[in-house]
Amino acid sequence: MEKLEHIGIAVKNLDKANALFAKLLGKPHYKVEEVPGEGVRTSFFDIGGVKIELLEATRADSPIATFIEKRGEGLHHLAFEVTDVHEKIVHLSDQGFHPLNTKPKEGADNKLIAFLHPKTSGSVLVELCQDNVKSNRVGD
Amino acid sequence: MEKLEHIGIAVKNLDKANALFAKLLGKPHYKVEEVPGEGVRTSFFDIGGVKIELLEATRADSPIATFIEKRGEGLHHLAFEVTDVHEKIVHLSDQGFHPLNTKPKEGADNKLIAFLHPKTSGSVLVELCQDNVKSNRVGD
Repeated sequence: MEKLEHIGIAVKNLDKANALFAKLLGKPHYKVEEVPGEGVRTSFFDIGGVKIELLEATRADSPIATFIEKRGEGLHHLAFEVTDVHEKIVHLSDQGFHPLNTKPKEGADNKLIAFLHPKTSGSVLVELCQDNVKSNRVGD
Repeated sequence: MEKLEHIGIAVKNLDKANALFAKLLGKPHYKVEEVPGEGVRTSFFDIGGVKIELLEATRADSPIATFIEKRGEGLHHLAFEVTDVHEKIVHLSDQGFHPLNTKPKEGADNKLIAFLHPKTSGSVLVELCQDNVKSNRVGD
């Protein structure tokens, strides 16, 4: 992994959390984005090039709703930037990690993403993310 | 906060976790350090300028032992670099946050540190850290 891309924090109420984290971090969030496939509404803060992503569930079966029900709000995942998420899934699987996605899916912030099950990664939910270049190309 | 300094991850066994995270991150830890005052043994990985700190308890009453007992291994805290930790404690306290330390203490990696109670910071344990310049000065 070359770079920590962002840290995900599960929150119950995105608007309230945006105000709280703006006060804590000393700067406001710079965007809000909904990811219907994941059942989340997210916001992003930039702290010296590392993003903090707040995640609010938009439906009862969202992974964020399940997480908050079990563990409460708080630190949810670490996301690392990778050059080739497809290749990384295969490589880490060979190394004994347990990818939750055999094929990457579309995440927030125009990324292709895949998760590793926390049971094989020190109880840390790990996201692999790659810039989804294709969707920026004219004609794709 | 200008920069994310490190992410703390609570682990049961530092040696095993060092091996696991080296495999996950694709590089080994670069140092191990014990902080007797905190009851922890720590190791550090550098991922593109952001540190990942693994923390193992060295005694039963260590905050890390208590954390693992309650919540298991995993993401423990976020640490932000600040220019003046004394000033930041006062400022954040005035903003409604609840510092766990009214005076900073010595942490790992030659830092002066203070924590914010997670109840006032979105259920995230936040560490403020400042380079402990004094201890590098000859004659101090």
